[in-house]
Amino acid sequence: MEVKANGPNDESGRIPDGPTKGRIPDGPTNPMVTPLLTDLYQFTMAYAYWKAGKHQERAVFDLYFRKNPFGGEYTVFAGLEECIRFIANFKFTEDEISFIRETLPGSCEDGFCDYLRGLDCSEVELYAVPEGSVVFPKVPLLRIEGPIAVVQLLETPLLNLVNYASLVATNAARHRFVAGKTKMLLEFGLRRAQGPDGGIGASKYCYIGGFDATSNVAAGRFFGIPLRGTHSHAFVSSYMSLDEIVEKSLQSSDGSSSCEDFVSLVQTWLDKIKWSNSLRGVFVETNQSELAAFTSYALAFPNNFLALVDTYDVIRSGIPNFCAVALALSDLGYKAVGIRLDSGDLAYLSCEARKFFCAIEKEFGVPGFGKTSITASNDLNEETLDALNKQGHEVDAFGIGTYLVTCFTQAALGCVFKLVEINNQPRIKLSEDVSKVSIPCKKGCFRLYGKEGYPLVDIMTGENEPSPKVGERILCRHPFNESKRAYVVPQKVEELLKCYWPGISGKAREDLPPLKEIRERCIKQLSKCVLII
Amino acid sequence: MEVKANGPNDESGRIPDGPTKGRIPDGPTNPMVTPLLTDLYQFTMAYAYWKAGKHQERAVFDLYFRKNPFGGEYTVFAGLEECIRFIANFKFTEDEISFIRETLPGSCEDGFCDYLRGLDCSEVELYAVPEGSVVFPKVPLLRIEGPIAVVQLLETPLLNLVNYASLVATNAARHRFVAGKTKMLLEFGLRRAQGPDGGIGASKYCYIGGFDATSNVAAGRFFGIPLRGTHSHAFVSSYMSLDEIVEKSLQSSDGSSSCEDFVSLVQTWLDKIKWSNSLRGVFVETNQSELAAFTSYALAFPNNFLALVDTYDVIRSGIPNFCAVALALSDLGYKAVGIRLDSGDLAYLSCEARKFFCAIEKEFGVPGFGKTSITASNDLNEETLDALNKQGHEVDAFGIGTYLVTCFTQAALGCVFKLVEINNQPRIKLSEDVSKVSIPCKKGCFRLYGKEGYPLVDIMTGENEPSPKVGERILCRHPFNESKRAYVVPQKVEELLKCYWPGISGKAREDLPPLKEIRERCIKQLSKCVLII
Repeated sequence: MEVKANGPNDESGRIPDGPTKGRIPDGPTNPMVTPLLTDLYQFTMAYAYWKAGKHQERAVFDLYFRKNPFGGEYTVFAGLEECIRFIANFKFTEDEISFIRETLPGSCEDGFCDYLRGLDCSEVELYAVPEGSVVFPKVPLLRIEGPIAVVQLLETPLLNLVNYASLVATNAARHRFVAGKTKMLLEFGLRRAQGPDGGIGASKYCYIGGFDATSNVAAGRFFGIPLRGTHSHAFVSSYMSLDEIVEKSLQSSDGSSSCEDFVSLVQTWLDKIKWSNSLRGVFVETNQSELAAFTSYALAFPNNFLALVDTYDVIRSGIPNFCAVALALSDLGYKAVGIRLDSGDLAYLSCEARKFFCAIEKEFGVPGFGKTSITASNDLNEETLDALNKQGHEVDAFGIGTYLVTCFTQAALGCVFKLVEINNQPRIKLSEDVSKVSIPCKKGCFRLYGKEGYPLVDIMTGENEPSPKVGERILCRHPFNESKRAYVVPQKVEELLKCYWPGISGKAREDLPPLKEIRERCIKQLSKCVLII
Repeated sequence: MEVKANGPNDESGRIPDGPTKGRIPDGPTNPMVTPLLTDLYQFTMAYAYWKAGKHQERAVFDLYFRKNPFGGEYTVFAGLEECIRFIANFKFTEDEISFIRETLPGSCEDGFCDYLRGLDCSEVELYAVPEGSVVFPKVPLLRIEGPIAVVQLLETPLLNLVNYASLVATNAARHRFVAGKTKMLLEFGLRRAQGPDGGIGASKYCYIGGFDATSNVAAGRFFGIPLRGTHSHAFVSSYMSLDEIVEKSLQSSDGSSSCEDFVSLVQTWLDKIKWSNSLRGVFVETNQSELAAFTSYALAFPNNFLALVDTYDVIRSGIPNFCAVALALSDLGYKAVGIRLDSGDLAYLSCEARKFFCAIEKEFGVPGFGKTSITASNDLNEETLDALNKQGHEVDAFGIGTYLVTCFTQAALGCVFKLVEINNQPRIKLSEDVSKVSIPCKKGCFRLYGKEGYPLVDIMTGENEPSPKVGERILCRHPFNESKRAYVVPQKVEELLKCYWPGISGKAREDLPPLKEIRERCIKQLSKCVLII
């Protein structure tokens, strides 16, 4: 099979279809993901295998993790598409081969370079759980079979591509669980992420885990994820006073009329609010720098007015200023989107904001104003979301950054890559730590479902053992209590590992679904798990 | 000034010299670092500034952090070179402009696209502390001046490029401090890092923070960092027996003779060790799969034989097998490098290994064998290094991965980017949380040194205040106790912020030093700090 080198080779930037097995996927999203993105020992081992004439021996490796992250009961598997993109385009450039030659000891033979020159993943087979699946410890997420030297070279990049992807998707799913299904969740983590594609990866995998949108424009472009964002504190403090606003006119929403002095209209509304029956005394003078910033932003985005209200004082300045601008917009047929709170007691402030909005709706007869959207941000995480729920709040959308994307409470998922078979012989790694002993043999992995279509347990069988069958009783290890056993009679049996890269086996290749389908799979599977837990 | 778009534009992959101010740096190491790698709100703000005719107003932003990470007393500043590479090549492509146009509301004016089309950083000035410097909270690491709309667009990428870089460099420096100056420190984190360039960045910035080498081949190639690595457990378990070794001959180190059956030589040595006076009874039968793997590896790398000895049993198999191969190599004039321990009680096992090596040296008269190198790995971090030191150990080199590169104990550094001045007017961000109130005004930042050339304190002055002078008494805030003040008479005054991107100011541009110089600056500055702390 012909496998193309990394990178595009026609004008559209796409790699054309392979000759026999459908389209070869594009290369990895990050062009830094090359065959050199691996540990040096993969090359020293490859050389030693090659030198011993052992490099073509057929090996089977399992990629799995030993423990669910965040002290939880499940993990979301992600990163598969990038793994397949990497494998499909795995090929050394001459520059890369020269670098390897210089890096290995001078005593190494040049024939190894010829070997690397001809190397690709055409003899490799990769089986995987579908991306976005809910998965559990010890069951392989990937099974990779192929000539031992090349499969070893894949170890580090595959681990790198799966580890963080699955960790952050799981973290996103956990945040979604605490926030509840009805809240909008926005990923705001780019500035604090661990490097540029730590940020881009976070946006992609948080979307899979159930987030609705991201602030990261690059991720929006790469993956088609919805984008969200309005303005920062700096925008507010960059204004001094309303005098700065030169162009003051605003056309009405339907284009039928024009307000020549939108600034005066805003000021009139601020005065009306100030002296209204229900809000009298709540505030005296609002910050004029902030009012100018809001007014200016509304003039730029009359259909998308969302204001950050905590630069100076939320209750006495930010919310009244927002409402004055929103009501002026309403006069012209526009509907303001809402506010963002980025500091202080978010539960209290959101409830006060809601009261304020409801009072405005009632007093000035603006239908729906009470439902103006409230977004909250500021170092949110699972715990603070839970605390907000317990206190009671009126937040509609959460913007979550640092704790989400860096997986602050557990910054790494410990996926490992273990040799389980070579030349059809089972292999094991022993350890004084029992949890680190690998499970030998090429395995079949199955998910057993009960009567209502809910998953019961995942089991592994040796390749030559019979597969579990619908309606047949089978003895399983209890999923949450290792010392217990339980009989299960499955109503449905699903083979977990599907063939995503068939090599030269002639097997059918699973399609890589679009991101939205992966996200839907995740959300659907989680809804079933959560019911059980 | 002509600023070139991202990416190479001649055959060497290098951007040619700029017309007036010397060479324009190459683009960012990661091609994903483009002007779209930012939050959407930077674009909505830019549009609102542009719409209000405010986009060219001259703003000053400070980039700083509020608290040292890891509960420590210092931070290592890193990431500057990537920031300058980004700024120097900041330019939108037509595709990027189209994407922004589609993303912004339809009501936005097309003139904004023309504005973006002409945008670069020629009017931006960037001042920074030199990369690799030891820095402290609240003092700006970067000061960026320029038209407000473009400087806001830079906020997110600059934060992204500085935050993780500085965090992981600091983490590396802390590991170096605990390990001590004489130990070899190897960064092994790629497989657990947060995404591909989380791994590549970790390798670079751990090197700056005082590590000696990495396992990450891509990072070795990008940055010239020394590479290290030998083999894994899978290599060991991929062998069944010595019968697998077909090519058994090995030439002597000086080429003068050849051993036709190196396998038999190894077996002979294993037998000698087994029945030697001092080691009799330590082991009975070693694992033959392991012995085969070691022998095969030595045949491939006779000058670089380093064996992972914990696949089966360190004391009863791994170490005796290693010694047998090492002594066989020694017969042929080669010197084995050492062993790696990757599990178990590293303090105990390293001491046992050392005793074994010393016994071999004595019994068989092999000079220097007792000093055979011992590398330890397996989830090491500051605490475990400290515990090893307290227990007493014989480890010469540490391989550190997960905890180092993901900064497990604190996965984010909270750098912020605050507007401090616009049109020469100071600006402030207030907050109910006093630590979050920004310090307004464009600042001068100075490090004051005492008699022996040791740094005493960093101070900030308003731009129009007099700078501190050598020999003149100045009242400073106490560096570790905010409520205290202290008089300082500096013997040397250093301006911390240097001009790395002069825009059109005509100022001289600081060179970007090579990575090794940055590393040396860091190590030198830390040695002075540590003496004081």
